Amino acid sequence: MKLLFLALPSVYRLAAFVGVGIVLGAVLAPGTGLAQKTMQQEAAAIFRPIPENPPKLPGNIVTPVKVELGRLLYFDPRLSASQLISCQTCHNVGLGGADLQETSIGHGWQKGPRNAPTTFNSVFNVAQFWDGRAKDLAEQSKGPVQAAVEMNNTPDRVVATLASIPQYVDLFAKAFPGQRNPVSFENMAQAIEAFEATLLTPGAPLDAFITGDESALTPTQQEGLRLFIDSGCSDCHYGINLGGMGYYPFGVAEAPSEDVRPTDDTGRFVVTNTASDKYVFKSPILRNVAITQPYFHSGKVWRLRDAVQIMGSSQLGFELEGKDADIITEFLKALTGKQPEVAHPILPPSTESTPKPMTQLLPEKESGKKG
Amino acid sequence: MKLLFLALPSVYRLAAFVGVGIVLGAVLAPGTGLAQKTMQQEAAAIFRPIPENPPKLPGNIVTPVKVELGRLLYFDPRLSASQLISCQTCHNVGLGGADLQETSIGHGWQKGPRNAPTTFNSVFNVAQFWDGRAKDLAEQSKGPVQAAVEMNNTPDRVVATLASIPQYVDLFAKAFPGQRNPVSFENMAQAIEAFEATLLTPGAPLDAFITGDESALTPTQQEGLRLFIDSGCSDCHYGINLGGMGYYPFGVAEAPSEDVRPTDDTGRFVVTNTASDKYVFKSPILRNVAITQPYFHSGKVWRLRDAVQIMGSSQLGFELEGKDADIITEFLKALTGKQPEVAHPILPPSTESTPKPMTQLLPEKESGKKG
Repeated sequence: MKLLFLALPSVYRLAAFVGVGIVLGAVLAPGTGLAQKTMQQEAAAIFRPIPENPPKLPGNIVTPVKVELGRLLYFDPRLSASQLISCQTCHNVGLGGADLQETSIGHGWQKGPRNAPTTFNSVFNVAQFWDGRAKDLAEQSKGPVQAAVEMNNTPDRVVATLASIPQYVDLFAKAFPGQRNPVSFENMAQAIEAFEATLLTPGAPLDAFITGDESALTPTQQEGLRLFIDSGCSDCHYGINLGGMGYYPFGVAEAPSEDVRPTDDTGRFVVTNTASDKYVFKSPILRNVAITQPYFHSGKVWRLRDAVQIMGSSQLGFELEGKDADIITEFLKALTGKQPEVAHPILPPSTESTPKPMTQLLPEKESGKKG
Repeated sequence: MKLLFLALPSVYRLAAFVGVGIVLGAVLAPGTGLAQKTMQQEAAAIFRPIPENPPKLPGNIVTPVKVELGRLLYFDPRLSASQLISCQTCHNVGLGGADLQETSIGHGWQKGPRNAPTTFNSVFNVAQFWDGRAKDLAEQSKGPVQAAVEMNNTPDRVVATLASIPQYVDLFAKAFPGQRNPVSFENMAQAIEAFEATLLTPGAPLDAFITGDESALTPTQQEGLRLFIDSGCSDCHYGINLGGMGYYPFGVAEAPSEDVRPTDDTGRFVVTNTASDKYVFKSPILRNVAITQPYFHSGKVWRLRDAVQIMGSSQLGFELEGKDADIITEFLKALTGKQPEVAHPILPPSTESTPKPMTQLLPEKESGKKG
């Protein structure tokens, strides 16, 4: 039923919501407390709170030593050819799991084609990258390591680097017991996934609200939540991450401006080669959105309120102006959770057999995939 | 007396050491334990252990909130024009307070002219930078922020950035109480200095040895220590950091090869404009030297043993070959201390009035000063 409903275009769903709202309003009008409870229940059915602890990972048994190895790898610039760029460079744990760039800067100061998505809570996404081309975080982590515009490295070189460092050899053996060749590109990816799954931001005001604390949202934020649901935002931005659960055309009602949705980035079309997937993207996570500007895959919009308005015109088919844009923006601020405290790892030193940094721009490999 | 002695060229001092050694050897020959004790005492007179706690800073009252502010600033890429580069980029707390580059990579992937010196224990240096042109860490920290090849920013822009972020405004007010304009470039520098002074690596085997634990150095390392002192290494590499205490010509006995000592970098000559300061540099810290390759201001030497040999020919005037180079290298490994555990800060988010990142290469300012 939910799926069927979600398959309807937003405008029809909006109409349905309004219809339901009118009926509910008629039924519940006498008791404001009851109506309030209903919004909590309604929100609790659409969204879910971020848990304190990471979920189980399909096909990846998580142990403390694997998480620890992943933490080291996440921060280790030796995963890149230049030995200057790490996962942390673009997915900064001090900056909401993202960077401050429109699109990330990688090897040779090249700019990537898309804004870096946050790693925080990303374990809950249905798939990874803006176009969902990686099925999980392990698969995702292999992309930037090899992309020419990002870390510009090769799996062989990464393995040679890690295998040259005795402390890594030891940690891989402990994290992947019983394997004949534990130091592998695949295991690097599994360890990074295990660490990234710990990057959760529980305790956002919305989570407190849907788990019973009515006062966790300000009256304005509650108004914003009402509008967020009723106007159709939550049709794409639902679930635990308020996004990241499905693929939607960017510009269903009206194409956004060329700078916000560059013509040459056709999104999921490149993955599926299906005409209807042109300009289709995974809906981004709205968790911590108020602290992870700039916005959209182009990174061209810096003000959250502007992003809300663009969503109104491009996705909902009407202008969100004045107070409407304000209260949705206020509601979005209620999605900022407790940021994870991560100790910067002490990285094991290189040895004489560790490959040296390669910082030159040429010879370049084929241009990297989009982020 | 010490100063007078240090003013003698190494070869004479070596001769004096050998002379003293012969006399001491004759006197102490019967008791090996006594001779051992003498080396401990001798080493304790030349070197000093790294303390557990930071020293007082002249003109900079250190408080916990100032250290905390400094920690945030050290990791904050918004000190750079691109908002991608922080102090941490080139002085990585997970990599011995340095980076893995020959010379650091900065704004626009430009390479700086000199290898990044470690920030660890650098508070004990007589001055900062390879040429000692900054009197302390506060003054030092202002350099890379402004250098076109490093962070490429301006003091005004840094202050505008910090002042646009309420949490920084609050922290500056607490760290610099009673000041009318606490958010200033000078106070940024003072806070960074306060944090950097906490980046200490106590507990190296040498420190245990000179404070009474004879077994802290292996027999080979003790041989290396003997040779390190007797052959004149400690003439420049003495004190708490085994370096960083004075200025010495690189190539006193014989000019190193052009790649190791590039002709166009005349070192302290540029600071003092004095002919005798050509190719004069501050002796680098040897603390943690085994984990902070590559070596020399050019960063052209990757193997520690090679660096030891170059020092022999260029500074001491004789080849350190075979076992001699080996045992000094082994001794240098006894200078690796306990690395500081630093929690990665959660950085306060930008606001709508925060200046946007400037990542373009042009217009460039004048070329940055050397590192």
